[in-house]
Amino acid sequence: MELETEIIVDKVDVRNPVLITSFPGIGLVGTIATAHFIMELQLENIGVVESKLLPPVASLFEGVVLPPIRIYQSTDMGFVLIHSDVPIIPQIAYDMSRRIVQWAAEINAHRLYSLAGVATFEDKKRVFGAATQKELLDEIKNHVEIFKTGTISGIAGSILNECVAKKFPGIVLLGETVGFNPDPRAAASLIEAMNKILGWQISVEKLIKEAEMIEAQMQKLAEQARIHEGMRREELPMYG
Amino acid sequence: MELETEIIVDKVDVRNPVLITSFPGIGLVGTIATAHFIMELQLENIGVVESKLLPPVASLFEGVVLPPIRIYQSTDMGFVLIHSDVPIIPQIAYDMSRRIVQWAAEINAHRLYSLAGVATFEDKKRVFGAATQKELLDEIKNHVEIFKTGTISGIAGSILNECVAKKFPGIVLLGETVGFNPDPRAAASLIEAMNKILGWQISVEKLIKEAEMIEAQMQKLAEQARIHEGMRREELPMYG
Amino acid sequence: MELETEIIVDKVDVRNPVLITSFPGIGLVGTIATAHFIMELQLENIGVVESKLLPPVASLFEGVVLPPIRIYQSTDMGFVLIHSDVPIIPQIAYDMSRRIVQWAAEINAHRLYSLAGVATFEDKKRVFGAATQKELLDEIKNHVEIFKTGTISGIAGSILNECVAKKFPGIVLLGETVGFNPDPRAAASLIEAMNKILGWQISVEKLIKEAEMIEAQMQKLAEQARIHEGMRREELPMYG
Amino acid sequence: MELETEIIVDKVDVRNPVLITSFPGIGLVGTIATAHFIMELQLENIGVVESKLLPPVASLFEGVVLPPIRIYQSTDMGFVLIHSDVPIIPQIAYDMSRRIVQWAAEINAHRLYSLAGVATFEDKKRVFGAATQKELLDEIKNHVEIFKTGTISGIAGSILNECVAKKFPGIVLLGETVGFNPDPRAAASLIEAMNKILGWQISVEKLIKEAEMIEAQMQKLAEQARIHEGMRREELPMYG
Amino acid sequence: MELETEIIVDKVDVRNPVLITSFPGIGLVGTIATAHFIMELQLENIGVVESKLLPPVASLFEGVVLPPIRIYQSTDMGFVLIHSDVPIIPQIAYDMSRRIVQWAAEINAHRLYSLAGVATFEDKKRVFGAATQKELLDEIKNHVEIFKTGTISGIAGSILNECVAKKFPGIVLLGETVGFNPDPRAAASLIEAMNKILGWQISVEKLIKEAEMIEAQMQKLAEQARIHEGMRREELPMYG
Repeated sequence: MELETEIIVDKVDVRNPVLITSFPGIGLVGTIATAHFIMELQLENIGVVESKLLPPVASLFEGVVLPPIRIYQSTDMGFVLIHSDVPIIPQIAYDMSRRIVQWAAEINAHRLYSLAGVATFEDKKRVFGAATQKELLDEIKNHVEIFKTGTISGIAGSILNECVAKKFPGIVLLGETVGFNPDPRAAASLIEAMNKILGWQISVEKLIKEAEMIEAQMQKLAEQARIHEGMRREELPMYG
Repeated sequence: MELETEIIVDKVDVRNPVLITSFPGIGLVGTIATAHFIMELQLENIGVVESKLLPPVASLFEGVVLPPIRIYQSTDMGFVLIHSDVPIIPQIAYDMSRRIVQWAAEINAHRLYSLAGVATFEDKKRVFGAATQKELLDEIKNHVEIFKTGTISGIAGSILNECVAKKFPGIVLLGETVGFNPDPRAAASLIEAMNKILGWQISVEKLIKEAEMIEAQMQKLAEQARIHEGMRREELPMYG
Repeated sequence: MELETEIIVDKVDVRNPVLITSFPGIGLVGTIATAHFIMELQLENIGVVESKLLPPVASLFEGVVLPPIRIYQSTDMGFVLIHSDVPIIPQIAYDMSRRIVQWAAEINAHRLYSLAGVATFEDKKRVFGAATQKELLDEIKNHVEIFKTGTISGIAGSILNECVAKKFPGIVLLGETVGFNPDPRAAASLIEAMNKILGWQISVEKLIKEAEMIEAQMQKLAEQARIHEGMRREELPMYG
Repeated sequence: MELETEIIVDKVDVRNPVLITSFPGIGLVGTIATAHFIMELQLENIGVVESKLLPPVASLFEGVVLPPIRIYQSTDMGFVLIHSDVPIIPQIAYDMSRRIVQWAAEINAHRLYSLAGVATFEDKKRVFGAATQKELLDEIKNHVEIFKTGTISGIAGSILNECVAKKFPGIVLLGETVGFNPDPRAAASLIEAMNKILGWQISVEKLIKEAEMIEAQMQKLAEQARIHEGMRREELPMYG
Repeated sequence: MELETEIIVDKVDVRNPVLITSFPGIGLVGTIATAHFIMELQLENIGVVESKLLPPVASLFEGVVLPPIRIYQSTDMGFVLIHSDVPIIPQIAYDMSRRIVQWAAEINAHRLYSLAGVATFEDKKRVFGAATQKELLDEIKNHVEIFKTGTISGIAGSILNECVAKKFPGIVLLGETVGFNPDPRAAASLIEAMNKILGWQISVEKLIKEAEMIEAQMQKLAEQARIHEGMRREELPMYG
């Protein structure tokens, strides 16, 4: 079966890389994490992922065109990264997953990490993990909580399914988030878990500052709402 | 005509296996039965069925990823099992059926069993059977009621049609159920019928316990409803 | 252009057969006629017509699975029959027609008969005929009324179009019917016309009995409606 | 790119023919004109145009099946004609146009004429013309008005686009019509323009008679409407 | 992957041309600019871009048929131009972009310029630019404002994405416009920017006159609206 996804890359310089993937989803947790990798580590763009079913839209960064799904590498840290600006509709998730896992084997990747978010009501910024084989859980179980039972939907799920089908070692890390707002603190937790698992030391300082700014704004909005509410109550004492 | 379904399996170790198939349908009868096989017999997962039209969703079991349609084998009991967590939309039923029956021939299966449910108003937990050839009815007629006239829709139906087209011996077993709730007792009856037909001795004890628990809960709910109804009548005597 | 319809048949034993085709349409005239052929002549099932766009549904007859479009033969009477339990949606009519006419040539059929119904307001149970060449009208004009002007829609129409395109001799016979109820009497007329044209002596006794039963029931219902109407008038004299 | 349209023709006997095409459109001007060619010149049917996206419908003429798009030839007058009973949906216009222009080259046609209607508010039964090259306008400019600026939509337009793409000399003639009723008088004007351009002498007497009959009926209806209107005014004098 | 877009061109006479592309979008800025090139420079039509998903419509210019997407060249000025009369639906944008960038390489184009509009609230008729590589920004930064951050949607965006994927040097120029009316003044600014970047001297006098005419009309309409408004106020003094 011919695939409709194409991966266009000149050359991968990393031997046996870890392949990291993230696509926009709940709390944009994975997307914020990999965008942070790109900026913080000044990653080199080495290619793109193409599909005729992606929306026709280009982004600009300092006047330079950025296609929606881009591939980066870090020879220092030994990883290759697939980062997407656009969410993937279910109709192409399977096709793209097959090509990505196929490509992971072609570049001799030794692990595939899929980064995403998971919504809970607790919002303790925990990081959950699961894997395509029991043995892989040993690699992560000291650093994340194992996500025992549940479902992972969207392309993050179909990449994992495809890893199982092709016996490619895949790990999913899910940053806990409370809702649908972009959540840089959950992304920071995710990166810290990766630091522990892979022995990296990527700073998350900027993400934490961003999170604090967002949280401060949120709190201000909440206070204003309370004051406003109070005023409304004074205005309308009979209905209080 | 190229098929869009792929069956990805390393190696089947069973010679001339019985091939058992089940997909979610009414009362989840077939699905509960094959899930019980997997747990009770600790079956070995040997592969998956893939189609780009399946929904992109992965399940987790103790932190390990499970693709939606999985293949298991039991070398002891001489069968191979295709179990699906997801219902199959009509648009892909024919394609998947063709691949499954083709594969049944490739692995030298000597029979294909399709397990499903059938809704009646009587709910006697009978098991009905039908087959793709008259001669096959002899194999089952002492252990199930022959389902003489009617229709079987969904992928269970198209697998049988494909068996007829390719002259592959296929048998369908339908566990009688009353409605749309998961029905472990109907699944237990189905397994007991298979025990008789194939000379197996698979215990259904756990399914019966599960059924009793569900039934007890149902009864409690029914009693509460009656009490509640009685109370409402006392409260509203004029309208009784 | 690759066709999506497949005809799966072991072997046709009839040399230069007449190929008869029928698909569910108005009054089910053609379908009832060919179903009667199958039962009355105890025809041997020799294969199926498959398309991935057919609905996934299997029928059962005495516990044996029947795919939706089946092929039968009668070596005695020298015909091959394509009978369908399911109506064909316009989207696949052309594809299926092409394969059927192609196959008609492959098995050296010397005529293709397409059986269907035609609705009129007169309901004289006449049989109308048309053909793909002027010369063919001579074969039928003494036994049926020539259907001079009009249109034939659905797969019966596209089979005839395809016969013209491939210069295959095709004849259509249309049993006159009044409406949308199954009409065994129109089917009987159709068979009697075929008896005359092809020198056959297929009994239609059972169809006539079935028609009489249906007509008797209809009459009873009509009488009850009249009585009921009378009663309602008595109950509501002021509004009569 | 494989085309889905097929042209099935035994043999074209005309050398370097003019290829005339018409498809149902506004006022059915082109369709009436080519239907008149077929009847008046007793043209020989030599083939059909097929596409799986055409509606499954056959027409009957004196009991003989006519597929929806037919090809005729006149060896005397040196033309080949593609006549369609059915309008072409935009989705297949391009595919069919490509095959038709391809075929025009295969049969060594030296000109392609596309006949259609054009709606104006004047209804002077003029005939407008346009062409795929400037030089071709010389062939028609003394006999029709050049259609300087505007758009031609539907398959008539895409046939012309395809002629430009493949450098095939194409001419479009548009009979002026006022609206959506079949307009035999516009068709007659169109044929008279062709007579002048190509030196033919096809009689349009029958079309004129048909037009007069339609016009007489229209007038009668208009008079009845006026009388009726008068009567209504007398009945309702207060509101006149 | 087979593409559905075809580029049909006899011969490109320009060596290492600049390839200019424009498709209808906001303010029709790019389309007006390239239409002006065609008229002002009397460009030679050398071919067309075809896709079966384009609407079936032909335009006429002085009686000669113009397909919807046409290719022109100027040997004097060293460019090739793709001009479209029709907007491109998102479903075919990727396919067409791939073929265009592929073709740019085939004809040894040394730059691809994509011309379009960008809506702002200021409407200073500025021209913005971006490029597929940092180095290319040097070529334009003295003549246009760099469009630092934002998105470019539609086929203009997917052509740029494809340039990045295939490492083809692409530049986008966006004429600032206020809204959805055709904006010849923005097109004139765009051409003047190109004059500066490429050392051309294409006159935009006619576009400026056209813009002045449109602006005069707009002003008249605005005045009439004011007068009318004044009158309405006098008529309805109480509600003024």
